[in-house]
Amino acid sequence: MFTLPQEESRAPAPCPSPASTQDLDSNYGDGLERERSRKPDWKLPELCDSTTMLSPDSSYLSSRGRVIKWFWDSAEEGYRTYHMDEYDEDKNPSGIINLGTSENKLCFDLLSRRLSQSDMLRVEPSLLQYPDWRGHPFLREEVARFLSFYCKSPAPLKPENVVVLNGCASLFSALATVLCEVGEAFLIPAPYYGAITQHVYLYGNVRLVCVYLDSEVTGLDTRPFQLTVEKLETALQRANSEGVKVKGLILINPHNPLGDIYSPGELRDYLEFAKRHELHVMVDEVYMLSVFEKSAAYRSVLSLEGLPDPQRTHVMWATSKDFGMSGLRFGTLYTENRDVATAVASLCRYHGLSGLVQYQMAQLLRDRDWINQVYLPENHARLKAAHSYVAGELRALGIPFLSRGAGFFIWVDLRKFLPEATFKEETLLWRRFLDNKVLLSCGKTFECKEPGWFRLVFSDKAHRLCLGMRRVRQVLEGISQVAEEPPSCQTEEPRSRHRET
Amino acid sequence: MFTLPQEESRAPAPCPSPASTQDLDSNYGDGLERERSRKPDWKLPELCDSTTMLSPDSSYLSSRGRVIKWFWDSAEEGYRTYHMDEYDEDKNPSGIINLGTSENKLCFDLLSRRLSQSDMLRVEPSLLQYPDWRGHPFLREEVARFLSFYCKSPAPLKPENVVVLNGCASLFSALATVLCEVGEAFLIPAPYYGAITQHVYLYGNVRLVCVYLDSEVTGLDTRPFQLTVEKLETALQRANSEGVKVKGLILINPHNPLGDIYSPGELRDYLEFAKRHELHVMVDEVYMLSVFEKSAAYRSVLSLEGLPDPQRTHVMWATSKDFGMSGLRFGTLYTENRDVATAVASLCRYHGLSGLVQYQMAQLLRDRDWINQVYLPENHARLKAAHSYVAGELRALGIPFLSRGAGFFIWVDLRKFLPEATFKEETLLWRRFLDNKVLLSCGKTFECKEPGWFRLVFSDKAHRLCLGMRRVRQVLEGISQVAEEPPSCQTEEPRSRHRET
Repeated sequence: MFTLPQEESRAPAPCPSPASTQDLDSNYGDGLERERSRKPDWKLPELCDSTTMLSPDSSYLSSRGRVIKWFWDSAEEGYRTYHMDEYDEDKNPSGIINLGTSENKLCFDLLSRRLSQSDMLRVEPSLLQYPDWRGHPFLREEVARFLSFYCKSPAPLKPENVVVLNGCASLFSALATVLCEVGEAFLIPAPYYGAITQHVYLYGNVRLVCVYLDSEVTGLDTRPFQLTVEKLETALQRANSEGVKVKGLILINPHNPLGDIYSPGELRDYLEFAKRHELHVMVDEVYMLSVFEKSAAYRSVLSLEGLPDPQRTHVMWATSKDFGMSGLRFGTLYTENRDVATAVASLCRYHGLSGLVQYQMAQLLRDRDWINQVYLPENHARLKAAHSYVAGELRALGIPFLSRGAGFFIWVDLRKFLPEATFKEETLLWRRFLDNKVLLSCGKTFECKEPGWFRLVFSDKAHRLCLGMRRVRQVLEGISQVAEEPPSCQTEEPRSRHRET
Repeated sequence: MFTLPQEESRAPAPCPSPASTQDLDSNYGDGLERERSRKPDWKLPELCDSTTMLSPDSSYLSSRGRVIKWFWDSAEEGYRTYHMDEYDEDKNPSGIINLGTSENKLCFDLLSRRLSQSDMLRVEPSLLQYPDWRGHPFLREEVARFLSFYCKSPAPLKPENVVVLNGCASLFSALATVLCEVGEAFLIPAPYYGAITQHVYLYGNVRLVCVYLDSEVTGLDTRPFQLTVEKLETALQRANSEGVKVKGLILINPHNPLGDIYSPGELRDYLEFAKRHELHVMVDEVYMLSVFEKSAAYRSVLSLEGLPDPQRTHVMWATSKDFGMSGLRFGTLYTENRDVATAVASLCRYHGLSGLVQYQMAQLLRDRDWINQVYLPENHARLKAAHSYVAGELRALGIPFLSRGAGFFIWVDLRKFLPEATFKEETLLWRRFLDNKVLLSCGKTFECKEPGWFRLVFSDKAHRLCLGMRRVRQVLEGISQVAEEPPSCQTEEPRSRHRET
């Protein structure tokens, strides 16, 4: 038995509430949403109660090592369960269908074909030697050209503002460390992709302060869970009043898990807010090419003329989502701030990717013909078809959901299936899905403050998707909807022609 | 202008001296010894004097971010200079020859041929999806088999004790973080591969306590710079008495920069010392297959029967040195301590390597025919030939050096060329070499406490090596040896038939 000293553990102090209360939910790696969704009620043990949660066997580790291990163990439990019973069409047809992990499994055929071409295997001495830790110059040039084109930047982006590394998880870790002192914080609108909590905390010891969003459409809101400057201001003020030093704002656009796309006007408002308070803005655009609905009119922050505070605006992109290759480990930072780029680069010796992969990525990113004429149209068509199918199923079940035309998931309102509006009931429902061999992610893992929301990933092959949806339906049809329905929430998207209820 | 608050910066407090005094010398990445050797007198600015050293322009960064950036900037200066005038046989024959970076450039032909074979390009969905962050099971199995064979373990090593990641720099970072609290320390015999200072400090905020070794052979020593348990005990006691908490011991075997190989008896003595004090031992064996002299009789720590404290013994290996692929970014941990393996794995989401590279590495490591019949014999023959050439040149110049038959470098005693035994004079000599277009690494960057030692890398192609040595000779022949020679040091290796003076 041991006690975890608060100071040594460097675990986050209790968050200011209610604006910024946040649990340190955990999951397994990044592919981890899979795991995350298997254990929705993980919490970092309260420090005063650490003896019960952290194994006394970990005495070989430092206190922070025990916390780091705890994150893995919590997830590992889910990981083991899932992999013990993973669905396989032939070998394990009654195994678990995974509609929880945000991976695009629709285009492995296209990707395998492209990545297997002979131009992908190039071995040169320079690729086998120590690299420039910012990334090989040929790759940074290609990334700059790629982002200039796909982000529609008003002027060509510069290779010297690019730093490449092994994924956005690493980028969050590096940015948190170089921008914040220990214990400082970033604002983040919630619900949000929960793994970011670990990314900024495990090495960087940085906290997240949630800007909680409501499903209810009130005031000047035009949609559920709408982020407004007023909500940002309130959360920031509350954090300040409770002594939490906020150094930046994290924006995810297109949003995970909401699927929301910020309009240029909204983006500018958020950036102006940040500028007023001298906050860095990290814009995570990993789904920028996964906008499959043309009407969605996505705009990258790099497309804006005259950023309010370019020295504090840092853009993140990766191939994990837009090229369906989460296992390839390629991510990139774009920032005009030379100090930030340099400091991140200095940490890149711990986040480096193979020279051979850097070559492959440059080949891929420069192949505009394949991207524009083969990959993107086909990928978008497949995403749209899969989305339509799931949306239709949900509609048939009378389940409200947000439909946004971007990303791999639908944010689903299952509140009416909870006997009580509690996270305990949410977990029970999640477990009923799992018992019926379908894995979803529940809202708690995204720090949603209203129990009953789930994220459902649709970017999977038809046969798995159909089976998964059938299992979802079986569970829901077996539940009598609660008498007292929760207050109806406007789940339609007024600015889109895709209105779902 | 700003001042860097000591607490916020988390910069190391002044080290206990003399046993453990240590500057935070810096370099560029890992390929960085190149840079390191270009700027031998970097120091972490004294905090009280930070206004002069750390740029006031870095106000966008946290204090730790500024320190992290400072490491890059210091190295960047060297990086720029070197790359502005890099030697090229055709394009820049008067450019700088690099005998400073420890890379093996002798076998790119063999490697390129093997890595270009068609079996190396395999693209499967599982390789493109989120991996197990410990490494794909197929790779961990291959690593366990590989290490069992080449380390000659008494029993087969287990895949579950293997964690793979993107290089040993990352592994040092992760181990420091999970084993130590902020500000705690590892013992390390000095001289040592100086980049480790950053690896344990930048993210982990862990310090190194030097166990300084002498060139003079005294007492029961049998060779220069001999590590003994007595020296370990003394350094540990001094650290303890000065309030520095030491949590582990780092051993490099074969040693960088000495080239020393520890005998099984020595290894066991060091491990017993560590066990007595409950210290973790990190054994860095990245040069284990680069022992080109058969008489050298290298033994991996994994070959020992009955490790004294297996739960605190953690072995590191990588392909950077032994397979001459520092740009490929593959390293591995082997430890029987499940807690340590798990905690490191939890950080591996920030140190992950591509699934495609994992596949390639498994293919390479399992190809015993190629390794045993092609690569290793040829590599060793080339290393030996290059070593013989440089040793002969040094002998002809009357320069004492250590000759050990392992690694890519020779530890050279140039003390008699310094007018005074100071690091200032060492730097001046280093600069004379550079002015004559040959880059070496001077002893200061390895925390050698005697000015005048240099590390000379010989693992390069003959034409570059000859030219480099000619330039070295030109510099030394232009210097009149100082009248008062330093106390002669026994640079011969009594247990080896390769005695050099």
